[in-house]
Amino acid sequence: MSAPSTTGRLVLVPNALDLGAEPEPIDAILSQQVLRRAASLTHWVVESAKTARSFLKRVDAVHPLGQPLQALDIQELPRPRKGSGDTVPDAVWQAVLTPALSGHEVGLLSDAGLPAVADPGAGLVAAAHAHGLRVEVLAGASSLTLALAASGLNGQRFAFEGYLPQAPAERQARVRELEQRSRREGQTQLVIETPYRNEALLQALCQQLQPSTRLAVACGLTSAGGWCESKTVEAWRRQVQRAGRMPMPDKLPAVFMWLAA
Amino acid sequence: MSAPSTTGRLVLVPNALDLGAEPEPIDAILSQQVLRRAASLTHWVVESAKTARSFLKRVDAVHPLGQPLQALDIQELPRPRKGSGDTVPDAVWQAVLTPALSGHEVGLLSDAGLPAVADPGAGLVAAAHAHGLRVEVLAGASSLTLALAASGLNGQRFAFEGYLPQAPAERQARVRELEQRSRREGQTQLVIETPYRNEALLQALCQQLQPSTRLAVACGLTSAGGWCESKTVEAWRRQVQRAGRMPMPDKLPAVFMWLAA
Repeated sequence: MSAPSTTGRLVLVPNALDLGAEPEPIDAILSQQVLRRAASLTHWVVESAKTARSFLKRVDAVHPLGQPLQALDIQELPRPRKGSGDTVPDAVWQAVLTPALSGHEVGLLSDAGLPAVADPGAGLVAAAHAHGLRVEVLAGASSLTLALAASGLNGQRFAFEGYLPQAPAERQARVRELEQRSRREGQTQLVIETPYRNEALLQALCQQLQPSTRLAVACGLTSAGGWCESKTVEAWRRQVQRAGRMPMPDKLPAVFMWLAA
Repeated sequence: MSAPSTTGRLVLVPNALDLGAEPEPIDAILSQQVLRRAASLTHWVVESAKTARSFLKRVDAVHPLGQPLQALDIQELPRPRKGSGDTVPDAVWQAVLTPALSGHEVGLLSDAGLPAVADPGAGLVAAAHAHGLRVEVLAGASSLTLALAASGLNGQRFAFEGYLPQAPAERQARVRELEQRSRREGQTQLVIETPYRNEALLQALCQQLQPSTRLAVACGLTSAGGWCESKTVEAWRRQVQRAGRMPMPDKLPAVFMWLAA
Protein backbone atom coordinates (compact mmCIF):
# COMPACT_ATOMS: atom_id res chain seq x y z
CA MET A 1 0.00 0.00 0.00
CA SER A 2 1.21 3.52 -0.81
CA ALA A 3 1.90 5.97 2.03
CA PRO A 4 -1.18 7.95 3.14
CA SER A 5 -1.67 10.87 0.80
CA THR A 6 -1.80 14.39 2.16
CA THR A 7 -4.17 15.65 -0.52
CA GLY A 8 -6.30 12.62 -1.36
CA ARG A 9 -9.58 12.42 0.50
CA LEU A 10 -13.06 10.95 0.43
CA VAL A 11 -15.77 13.60 0.00
CA LEU A 12 -19.32 12.57 0.97
CA VAL A 13 -21.68 14.34 -1.44
CA PRO A 14 -25.38 14.62 -0.57
CA ASN A 15 -27.89 13.84 -3.29
CA ALA A 16 -31.39 15.32 -3.60
CA LEU A 17 -34.31 13.54 -1.89
CA ASP A 18 -36.76 13.70 -4.78
CA LEU A 19 -36.14 10.10 -5.84
CA GLY A 20 -39.25 8.90 -7.62
CA ALA A 21 -40.87 12.34 -7.63
CA GLU A 22 -40.81 15.13 -10.24
CA PRO A 23 -37.19 16.38 -10.22
CA GLU A 24 -36.57 20.06 -9.52
CA PRO A 25 -33.52 22.07 -10.59
CA ILE A 26 -30.80 20.76 -8.30
CA ASP A 27 -29.83 24.24 -7.04
CA ALA A 28 -33.26 24.45 -5.42
CA ILE A 29 -32.15 21.62 -3.14
CA LEU A 30 -28.36 21.72 -2.80
CA SER A 31 -26.21 24.71 -1.86
CA GLN A 32 -23.85 26.49 -4.21
CA GLN A 33 -20.92 25.12 -2.20
CA VAL A 34 -22.03 21.53 -2.69
CA LEU A 35 -22.68 22.11 -6.41
CA ARG A 36 -19.28 23.76 -6.91
CA ARG A 37 -17.47 20.89 -5.19
CA ALA A 38 -19.51 18.21 -6.96
CA ALA A 39 -18.80 19.82 -10.35
CA SER A 40 -15.06 19.78 -9.66
CA LEU A 41 -14.68 16.10 -8.67
CA THR A 42 -13.21 13.82 -11.33
CA HIS A 43 -13.40 10.52 -9.39
CA TRP A 44 -16.54 9.01 -7.90
CA VAL A 45 -17.68 5.93 -6.00
CA VAL A 46 -21.45 5.63 -6.19
CA GLU A 47 -24.40 3.48 -5.15
CA SER A 48 -25.51 3.13 -8.79
CA ALA A 49 -23.76 4.54 -11.86
CA LYS A 50 -27.02 5.33 -13.65
CA THR A 51 -28.40 7.48 -10.81
CA ALA A 52 -24.99 9.14 -10.38
CA ARG A 53 -24.89 10.14 -14.06
CA SER A 54 -28.37 11.60 -13.76
CA PHE A 55 -27.27 13.55 -10.63
CA LEU A 56 -24.19 14.85 -12.47
CA LYS A 57 -26.32 15.96 -15.43
CA ARG A 58 -28.50 17.94 -13.03
CA VAL A 59 -25.38 19.51 -11.49
CA ASP A 60 -23.98 20.31 -14.96
CA ALA A 61 -27.20 22.14 -15.88
CA VAL A 62 -26.61 24.73 -13.15
CA HIS A 63 -22.84 24.48 -12.54
CA PRO A 64 -20.84 23.15 -15.52
CA LEU A 65 -18.75 20.08 -14.72
CA GLY A 66 -14.96 20.54 -14.72
CA GLN A 67 -14.66 17.63 -17.17
CA PRO A 68 -17.20 16.07 -19.52
CA LEU A 69 -19.33 13.37 -17.90
CA GLN A 70 -17.79 10.68 -20.14
CA ALA A 71 -14.31 11.56 -18.89
CA LEU A 72 -15.17 11.05 -15.21
CA ASP A 73 -14.00 7.97 -13.33
CA ILE A 74 -17.20 6.48 -11.85
CA GLN A 75 -17.03 3.20 -9.88
CA GLU A 76 -19.96 1.47 -8.21
CA LEU A 77 -19.67 0.57 -4.53
CA PRO A 78 -18.62 -3.07 -4.18
CA ARG A 79 -21.28 -5.32 -2.61
CA PRO A 80 -20.43 -8.13 -0.21
CA ARG A 81 -20.23 -11.50 -2.01
CA LYS A 82 -22.73 -14.11 -0.86
CA GLY A 83 -21.33 -16.26 1.92
CA SER A 84 -18.71 -13.65 2.81
CA GLY A 85 -20.39 -12.82 6.14
CA ASP A 86 -21.62 -9.49 4.82
CA THR A 87 -18.16 -7.95 4.57
CA VAL A 88 -16.12 -6.66 1.67
CA PRO A 89 -12.43 -7.73 1.88
CA ASP A 90 -10.03 -4.87 2.65
CA ALA A 91 -8.13 -5.52 -0.60
CA VAL A 92 -11.32 -4.62 -2.49
CA TRP A 93 -11.79 -1.37 -0.54
CA GLN A 94 -8.14 -0.53 -1.12
CA ALA A 95 -8.56 -1.00 -4.87
CA VAL A 96 -11.62 1.27 -4.84
CA LEU A 97 -9.68 3.88 -2.85
CA THR A 98 -6.65 3.82 -5.19
CA PRO A 99 -7.45 7.25 -6.74
CA ALA A 100 -7.76 8.80 -3.26
CA LEU A 101 -4.57 7.09 -2.03
CA SER A 102 -2.73 8.57 -5.00
CA GLY A 103 -3.88 12.10 -4.18
CA HIS A 104 -7.31 12.61 -5.78
CA GLU A 105 -10.44 13.88 -4.10
CA VAL A 106 -13.00 11.09 -4.53
CA GLY A 107 -16.73 11.75 -4.22
CA LEU A 108 -19.05 9.24 -2.52
CA LEU A 109 -22.68 9.52 -3.67
CA SER A 110 -25.79 7.48 -2.94
CA ASP A 111 -29.10 7.45 -4.83
CA ALA A 112 -30.76 9.93 -2.46
CA GLY A 113 -29.79 11.99 0.58
CA LEU A 114 -26.61 11.49 2.57
CA PRO A 115 -24.38 8.53 1.71
CA ALA A 116 -23.82 6.01 4.52
CA VAL A 117 -26.92 7.04 6.51
CA ALA A 118 -29.77 4.57 5.90
CA ASP A 119 -27.86 3.94 2.68
CA PRO A 120 -24.73 2.05 1.58
CA GLY A 121 -21.26 3.56 1.92
CA ALA A 122 -20.20 3.16 5.57
CA GLY A 123 -17.80 0.32 4.68
CA LEU A 124 -15.96 2.57 2.24
CA VAL A 125 -15.84 5.45 4.74
CA ALA A 126 -14.44 3.10 7.41
CA ALA A 127 -11.81 1.85 4.95
CA ALA A 128 -10.85 5.46 4.11
CA HIS A 129 -10.29 6.18 7.83
CA ALA A 130 -8.30 2.93 8.21
CA HIS A 131 -6.05 3.94 5.29
CA GLY A 132 -5.34 7.35 6.81
CA LEU A 133 -7.40 9.34 4.29
CA ARG A 134 -9.20 12.47 5.31
CA VAL A 135 -12.99 12.16 5.20
CA GLU A 136 -15.06 15.25 4.45
CA VAL A 137 -18.84 15.56 4.32
CA LEU A 138 -20.68 18.30 2.45
CA ALA A 139 -23.80 19.80 4.03
CA GLY A 140 -26.94 18.03 2.91
CA ALA A 141 -30.21 16.66 4.16
CA SER A 142 -31.01 13.18 5.41
CA SER A 143 -34.64 12.09 5.06
CA LEU A 144 -34.49 10.67 8.61
CA THR A 145 -33.71 13.89 10.45
CA LEU A 146 -36.12 15.90 8.25
CA ALA A 147 -38.87 13.40 9.12
CA LEU A 148 -38.00 13.54 12.81
CA ALA A 149 -38.06 17.36 12.83
CA ALA A 150 -41.44 17.39 11.09
CA SER A 151 -42.93 14.79 13.46
CA GLY A 152 -42.81 16.89 16.64
CA LEU A 153 -41.68 13.75 18.50
CA ASN A 154 -38.62 13.79 20.77
CA GLY A 155 -35.60 14.96 18.78
CA GLN A 156 -33.31 14.98 21.82
CA ARG A 157 -33.35 11.17 22.00
CA PHE A 158 -34.12 8.92 19.05
CA ALA A 159 -33.10 5.67 17.40
CA PHE A 160 -33.19 4.52 13.78
CA GLU A 161 -33.85 0.79 13.56
CA GLY A 162 -33.74 0.37 9.76
CA TYR A 163 -36.21 -2.30 8.60
CA LEU A 164 -38.34 -4.30 11.02
CA PRO A 165 -38.32 -8.12 10.70
CA GLN A 166 -40.68 -9.37 7.93
CA ALA A 167 -42.11 -12.38 9.81
CA PRO A 168 -45.30 -11.17 11.58
CA ALA A 169 -44.54 -12.67 15.03
CA GLU A 170 -40.97 -11.39 15.08
CA ARG A 171 -42.09 -8.00 13.81
CA GLN A 172 -44.71 -7.68 16.51
CA ALA A 173 -42.21 -8.68 19.21
CA ARG A 174 -39.72 -6.10 17.99
CA VAL A 175 -42.34 -3.33 17.74
CA ARG A 176 -43.40 -4.01 21.36
CA GLU A 177 -39.79 -4.11 22.55
CA LEU A 178 -39.03 -0.77 20.87
CA GLU A 179 -42.24 0.72 22.27
CA GLN A 180 -41.19 -0.30 25.79
CA ARG A 181 -37.75 1.22 25.25
CA SER A 182 -39.41 4.38 23.93
CA ARG A 183 -41.52 4.62 27.11
CA ARG A 184 -38.61 3.90 29.46
CA GLU A 185 -36.07 6.20 27.81
CA GLY A 186 -38.25 8.82 26.08
CA GLN A 187 -36.62 7.69 22.84
CA THR A 188 -38.40 8.24 19.49
CA GLN A 189 -38.18 5.12 17.29
CA LEU A 190 -37.72 5.47 13.51
CA VAL A 191 -38.12 2.70 10.93
CA ILE A 192 -38.39 2.50 7.14
CA GLU A 193 -40.03 -0.03 4.83
CA THR A 194 -39.91 -1.10 1.20
CA PRO A 195 -42.45 1.33 -0.35
CA TYR A 196 -44.95 -1.29 -1.60
CA ARG A 197 -45.28 -2.49 2.02
CA ASN A 198 -45.86 1.03 3.47
CA GLU A 199 -49.59 0.51 3.95
CA ALA A 200 -49.16 -2.91 5.58
CA LEU A 201 -46.59 -1.52 8.02
CA LEU A 202 -48.80 1.41 9.00
CA GLN A 203 -51.68 -1.03 9.63
CA ALA A 204 -49.47 -3.28 11.75
CA LEU A 205 -48.17 -0.35 13.82
CA CYS A 206 -51.72 0.92 14.41
CA GLN A 207 -52.73 -2.51 15.68
CA GLN A 208 -49.66 -3.28 17.74
CA LEU A 209 -48.76 0.00 19.44
CA GLN A 210 -50.61 1.29 22.51
CA PRO A 211 -53.50 3.75 21.84
CA SER A 212 -51.70 6.57 23.67
CA THR A 213 -48.44 6.17 21.74
CA ARG A 214 -47.81 8.99 19.27
CA LEU A 215 -47.22 7.73 15.73
CA ALA A 216 -45.96 9.89 12.85
CA VAL A 217 -45.46 9.16 9.15
CA ALA A 218 -43.46 11.35 6.76
CA CYS A 219 -43.38 10.88 3.02
CA GLY A 220 -41.72 12.78 0.16
CA LEU A 221 -40.55 15.66 2.36
CA THR A 222 -38.82 18.40 0.31
CA SER A 223 -40.98 17.43 -2.72
CA ALA A 224 -44.06 19.45 -3.68
CA GLY A 225 -46.50 16.79 -2.48
CA GLY A 226 -44.57 15.90 0.66
CA TRP A 227 -46.38 15.51 3.98
CA CYS A 228 -46.01 14.50 7.61
CA GLU A 229 -48.90 13.36 9.84
CA SER A 230 -48.42 12.98 13.58
CA LYS A 231 -51.07 11.92 16.13
CA THR A 232 -51.87 9.25 18.68
CA VAL A 233 -52.40 5.64 17.61
CA GLU A 234 -55.98 6.06 18.85
CA ALA A 235 -56.51 8.95 16.40
CA TRP A 236 -54.96 6.93 13.54
CA ARG A 237 -57.36 4.06 14.34
CA ARG A 238 -60.38 6.38 14.24
CA GLN A 239 -59.20 7.66 10.87
CA VAL A 240 -58.98 4.10 9.50
CA GLN A 241 -62.43 3.27 10.85
CA ARG A 242 -63.87 6.29 9.05
CA ALA A 243 -62.03 5.71 5.76
CA GLY A 244 -62.12 1.90 5.71
CA ARG A 245 -58.41 1.74 4.94
CA MET A 246 -55.25 3.75 5.29
CA PRO A 247 -53.94 4.62 1.83
CA MET A 248 -50.18 5.07 1.57
CA PRO A 249 -48.00 5.79 -1.48
CA ASP A 250 -46.57 2.45 -2.68
CA LYS A 251 -43.66 3.85 -4.69
CA LEU A 252 -42.32 6.60 -2.40
CA PRO A 253 -40.12 5.91 0.63
CA ALA A 254 -41.73 6.85 3.96
CA VAL A 255 -40.36 7.18 7.50
CA PHE A 256 -42.43 5.76 10.41
CA MET A 257 -41.83 7.11 13.92
CA TRP A 258 -43.32 6.53 17.33
CA LEU A 259 -42.94 7.78 20.89
CA ALA A 260 -44.69 6.04 23.78
CA ALA A 261 -46.53 8.20 26.32
CA MET B 1 -59.77 28.02 19.23
CA SER B 2 -60.24 29.15 15.63
CA ALA B 3 -60.98 26.56 12.94
CA PRO B 4 -57.87 25.03 11.39
CA SER B 5 -56.56 27.29 8.66
CA THR B 6 -56.11 25.93 5.16
CA THR B 7 -53.18 28.20 4.33
CA GLY B 8 -51.42 28.72 7.66
CA ARG B 9 -48.57 26.37 8.33
CA LEU B 10 -45.39 25.89 10.32
CA VAL B 11 -42.26 25.87 8.14
CA LEU B 12 -39.13 24.36 9.69
CA VAL B 13 -36.18 26.35 8.35
CA PRO B 14 -32.65 24.91 8.64
CA ASN B 15 -29.89 27.21 9.87
CA ALA B 16 -26.21 26.95 8.94
CA LEU B 17 -23.90 24.82 11.12
CA ASP B 18 -21.03 27.28 11.40
CA LEU B 19 -22.03 28.45 14.85
CA GLY B 20 -18.92 29.74 16.57
CA ALA B 21 -16.78 29.48 13.44
CA GLU B 22 -15.99 32.02 10.71
CA PRO B 23 -19.33 32.58 8.93
CA GLU B 24 -19.47 31.95 5.18
CA PRO B 25 -21.96 33.48 2.75
CA ILE B 26 -25.17 31.67 3.57
CA ASP B 27 -25.76 30.56 -0.02
CA ALA B 28 -22.65 28.43 0.26
CA ILE B 29 -24.53 26.38 2.84
CA LEU B 30 -28.26 26.61 2.15
CA SER B 31 -30.03 26.00 -1.16
CA GLN B 32 -31.69 28.69 -3.25
CA GLN B 33 -35.07 27.17 -2.40
CA VAL B 34 -34.48 27.51 1.34
CA LEU B 35 -33.17 31.07 0.94
CA ARG B 36 -36.15 32.09 -1.20
CA ARG B 37 -38.64 30.69 1.30
CA ALA B 38 -36.78 32.14 4.31
CA ALA B 39 -36.69 35.59 2.69
CA SER B 40 -40.45 35.49 2.13
CA LEU B 41 -41.56 34.61 5.68
CA THR B 42 -42.93 37.48 7.76
CA HIS B 43 -43.56 35.52 11.00
CA TRP B 44 -40.97 33.58 12.96
CA VAL B 45 -40.66 31.54 16.13
CA VAL B 46 -37.00 31.12 17.01
CA GLU B 47 -34.63 29.64 19.60
CA SER B 48 -33.03 33.06 20.17
CA ALA B 49 -34.03 36.37 18.58
CA LYS B 50 -30.43 37.60 18.34
CA THR B 51 -29.21 34.58 16.37
CA ALA B 52 -32.34 34.68 14.20
CA ARG B 53 -31.69 38.32 13.26
CA SER B 54 -28.11 37.48 12.36
CA PHE B 55 -29.39 34.56 10.21
CA LEU B 56 -31.89 36.85 8.47
CA LYS B 57 -29.16 39.43 7.76
CA ARG B 58 -27.10 36.70 6.10
CA VAL B 59 -30.14 35.68 4.04
CA ASP B 60 -30.83 39.32 3.11
CA ALA B 61 -27.25 39.71 1.82
CA VAL B 62 -27.86 37.10 -0.89
CA HIS B 63 -31.66 37.09 -1.24
CA PRO B 64 -33.36 40.37 -0.18
CA LEU B 65 -36.02 39.91 2.51
CA GLY B 66 -39.63 40.53 1.45
CA GLN B 67 -39.99 43.00 4.33
CA PRO B 68 -37.38 44.92 6.33
CA LEU B 69 -35.98 42.98 9.30
CA GLN B 70 -37.55 45.45 11.76
CA ALA B 71 -41.01 44.76 10.33
CA LEU B 72 -40.83 41.00 10.88
CA ASP B 73 -42.76 39.34 13.70
CA ILE B 74 -40.11 37.38 15.64
CA GLN B 75 -41.11 35.47 18.80
CA GLU B 76 -38.79 33.38 20.95
CA LEU B 77 -39.78 29.78 21.72
CA PRO B 78 -41.43 29.62 25.14
CA ARG B 79 -39.42 27.67 27.71
CA PRO B 80 -41.04 25.45 30.34
CA ARG B 81 -41.46 27.30 33.65
CA LYS B 82 -39.61 25.78 36.59
CA GLY B 83 -41.72 23.27 38.44
CA SER B 84 -44.05 22.80 35.48
CA GLY B 85 -42.78 19.26 34.82
CA ASP B 86 -40.90 20.31 31.71
CA THR B 87 -44.01 21.11 29.70
CA VAL B 88 -45.38 24.27 28.17
CA PRO B 89 -49.16 24.65 28.64
CA ASP B 90 -51.17 24.26 25.44
CA ALA B 91 -52.60 27.78 25.83
CA VAL B 92 -49.06 29.13 25.49
CA TRP B 93 -48.42 27.12 22.31
CA GLN B 94 -51.75 28.25 20.93
CA ALA B 95 -50.81 31.90 21.52
CA VAL B 96 -47.48 31.37 19.75
CA LEU B 97 -49.28 29.70 16.85
CA THR B 98 -51.87 32.49 16.47
CA PRO B 99 -50.32 33.88 13.25
CA ALA B 100 -50.31 30.38 11.70
CA LEU B 101 -53.88 29.70 12.87
CA SER B 102 -54.97 32.91 11.18
CA GLY B 103 -53.41 31.90 7.85
CA HIS B 104 -49.74 32.92 7.90
CA GLU B 105 -46.76 30.77 7.12
CA VAL B 106 -44.65 30.80 10.28
CA GLY B 107 -40.95 29.89 10.20
CA LEU B 108 -39.35 27.87 13.00
CA LEU B 109 -35.59 28.43 13.32
CA SER B 110 -32.99 27.22 15.81
CA ASP B 111 -29.48 28.57 16.39
CA ALA B 112 -27.84 25.94 14.16
CA GLY B 113 -28.91 23.09 11.91
CA LEU B 114 -32.42 21.63 11.87
CA PRO B 115 -34.94 22.84 14.44
CA ALA B 116 -36.34 20.16 16.80
CA VAL B 117 -33.45 17.71 16.23
CA ALA B 118 -30.96 17.88 19.13
CA ASP B 119 -32.42 21.36 19.51
CA PRO B 120 -35.60 22.96 20.91
CA GLY B 121 -38.80 23.15 18.89
CA ALA B 122 -40.45 19.72 19.04
CA GLY B 123 -43.10 21.00 21.47
CA LEU B 124 -44.17 23.68 19.01
CA VAL B 125 -44.22 21.21 16.10
CA ALA B 126 -46.37 18.82 18.15
CA ALA B 127 -48.75 21.68 19.01
CA ALA B 128 -48.99 22.63 15.34
CA HIS B 129 -50.01 19.06 14.46
CA ALA B 130 -52.50 19.01 17.34
CA HIS B 131 -54.08 22.25 16.05
CA GLY B 132 -54.48 20.85 12.54
CA LEU B 133 -51.78 23.00 10.96
CA ARG B 134 -49.70 21.68 8.13
CA VAL B 135 -46.01 21.18 9.03
CA GLU B 136 -43.41 21.59 6.31
CA VAL B 137 -39.65 21.11 6.60
CA LEU B 138 -37.14 22.66 4.21
CA ALA B 139 -34.10 20.59 3.19
CA GLY B 140 -31.13 21.21 5.44
CA ALA B 141 -28.36 19.47 7.29
CA SER B 142 -28.32 18.13 10.82
CA SER B 143 -24.90 17.90 12.48
CA LEU B 144 -25.82 14.43 13.79
CA THR B 145 -26.37 12.73 10.43
CA LEU B 146 -23.37 14.51 8.88
CA ALA B 147 -21.21 13.23 11.76
CA LEU B 148 -22.61 9.72 11.43
CA ALA B 149 -21.96 9.67 7.65
CA ALA B 150 -18.38 10.86 8.19
CA SER B 151 -17.70 8.30 10.95
CA GLY B 152 -17.99 5.16 8.79
CA LEU B 153 -19.87 3.52 11.68
CA ASN B 154 -23.19 1.76 11.10
CA GLY B 155 -25.65 4.21 9.51
CA GLN B 156 -28.36 1.55 9.08
CA ARG B 157 -28.94 1.39 12.85
CA PHE B 158 -28.09 4.19 15.24
CA ALA B 159 -29.33 6.01 18.32
CA PHE B 160 -28.86 9.56 19.55
CA GLU B 161 -28.76 9.70 23.35
CA GLY B 162 -28.36 13.46 23.82
CA TYR B 163 -26.19 14.25 26.85
CA LEU B 164 -24.80 11.53 29.11
CA PRO B 165 -25.35 11.87 32.89
CA GLN B 166 -22.84 14.23 34.54
CA ALA B 167 -22.19 12.17 37.70
CA PRO B 168 -19.17 9.92 36.97
CA ALA B 169 -20.66 6.65 38.26
CA GLU B 170 -23.97 7.14 36.44
CA ARG B 171 -22.15 8.21 33.30
CA GLN B 172 -19.96 5.13 33.35
CA ALA B 173 -22.96 2.85 33.89
CA ARG B 174 -24.81 4.43 30.95
CA VAL B 175 -21.78 4.25 28.65
CA ARG B 176 -21.40 0.52 29.42
CA GLU B 177 -25.13 -0.10 28.93
CA LEU B 178 -25.09 1.66 25.55
CA GLU B 179 -21.93 -0.23 24.55
CA GLN B 180 -23.67 -3.54 25.32
CA ARG B 181 -26.70 -2.48 23.31
CA SER B 182 -24.40 -1.45 20.47
CA ARG B 183 -22.79 -4.91 20.48
CA ARG B 184 -26.10 -6.76 20.70
CA GLU B 185 -27.97 -4.74 18.06
CA GLY B 186 -25.16 -3.40 15.85
CA GLN B 187 -26.43 0.07 16.78
CA THR B 188 -24.10 3.08 16.57
CA GLN B 189 -24.45 5.30 19.67
CA LEU B 190 -24.27 9.11 19.33
CA VAL B 191 -23.90 11.62 22.17
CA ILE B 192 -23.07 15.31 22.47
CA GLU B 193 -21.52 17.35 25.29
CA THR B 194 -21.24 20.97 26.39
CA PRO B 195 -18.14 22.08 24.41
CA TYR B 196 -15.93 22.92 27.41
CA ARG B 197 -16.34 19.33 28.57
CA ASN B 198 -15.45 17.78 25.17
CA GLU B 199 -11.97 16.73 26.25
CA ALA B 200 -13.16 15.19 29.53
CA LEU B 201 -15.84 13.19 27.70
CA LEU B 202 -13.37 11.84 25.15
CA GLN B 203 -11.06 10.79 27.98
CA ALA B 204 -13.89 9.06 29.84
CA LEU B 205 -15.03 7.20 26.69
CA CYS B 206 -11.45 6.05 25.97
CA GLN B 207 -11.20 4.67 29.50
CA GLN B 208 -14.64 3.11 29.75
CA LEU B 209 -15.27 1.55 26.33
CA GLN B 210 -13.73 -1.78 25.30
CA PRO B 211 -10.43 -1.56 23.34
CA SER B 212 -12.00 -3.12 20.23
CA THR B 213 -14.97 -0.70 20.14
CA ARG B 214 -14.78 1.82 17.30
CA LEU B 215 -14.99 5.43 18.53
CA ALA B 216 -15.44 8.46 16.26
CA VAL B 217 -15.46 12.18 16.98
CA ALA B 218 -16.68 14.85 14.54
CA CYS B 219 -16.25 18.57 15.07
CA GLY B 220 -17.10 21.63 12.98
CA LEU B 221 -18.17 19.63 9.92
CA THR B 222 -19.08 21.92 6.97
CA SER B 223 -16.67 24.58 8.34
CA ALA B 224 -13.20 25.01 6.84
CA GLY B 225 -11.40 23.46 9.84
CA GLY B 226 -13.94 20.67 10.37
CA TRP B 227 -12.75 17.12 10.97
CA CYS B 228 -13.83 13.59 11.83
CA GLU B 229 -11.54 10.94 13.35
CA SER B 230 -12.66 7.34 13.58
CA LYS B 231 -10.64 4.41 14.98
CA THR B 232 -10.67 1.75 17.71
CA VAL B 233 -10.54 2.76 21.37
CA GLU B 234 -7.18 0.98 21.49
CA ALA B 235 -5.83 3.29 18.76
CA TRP B 236 -7.22 6.37 20.58
CA ARG B 237 -5.45 5.22 23.77
CA ARG B 238 -2.11 4.82 21.96
CA GLN B 239 -2.55 8.33 20.57
CA VAL B 240 -3.09 9.76 24.07
CA GLN B 241 -0.08 7.88 25.40
CA ARG B 242 2.11 9.42 22.69
CA ALA B 243 0.71 12.96 23.04
CA GLY B 244 0.21 13.03 26.82
CA ARG B 245 -3.32 14.37 26.40
CA MET B 246 -6.14 14.51 23.90
CA PRO B 247 -6.73 18.12 22.91
CA MET B 248 -10.32 18.97 21.88
CA PRO B 249 -11.85 22.32 20.90
CA ASP B 250 -13.58 23.75 23.99
CA LYS B 251 -15.90 26.17 22.18
CA LEU B 252 -17.11 24.10 19.22
CA PRO B 253 -19.83 21.45 19.52
CA ALA B 254 -18.65 17.92 18.78
CA VAL B 255 -20.48 14.64 18.16
CA PHE B 256 -19.14 11.44 19.82
CA MET B 257 -20.07 8.07 18.34
CA TRP B 258 -19.22 4.45 19.08
CA LEU B 259 -19.95 0.99 17.70
CA ALA B 260 -18.96 -2.14 19.65
CA ALA B 261 -17.21 -4.94 17.76
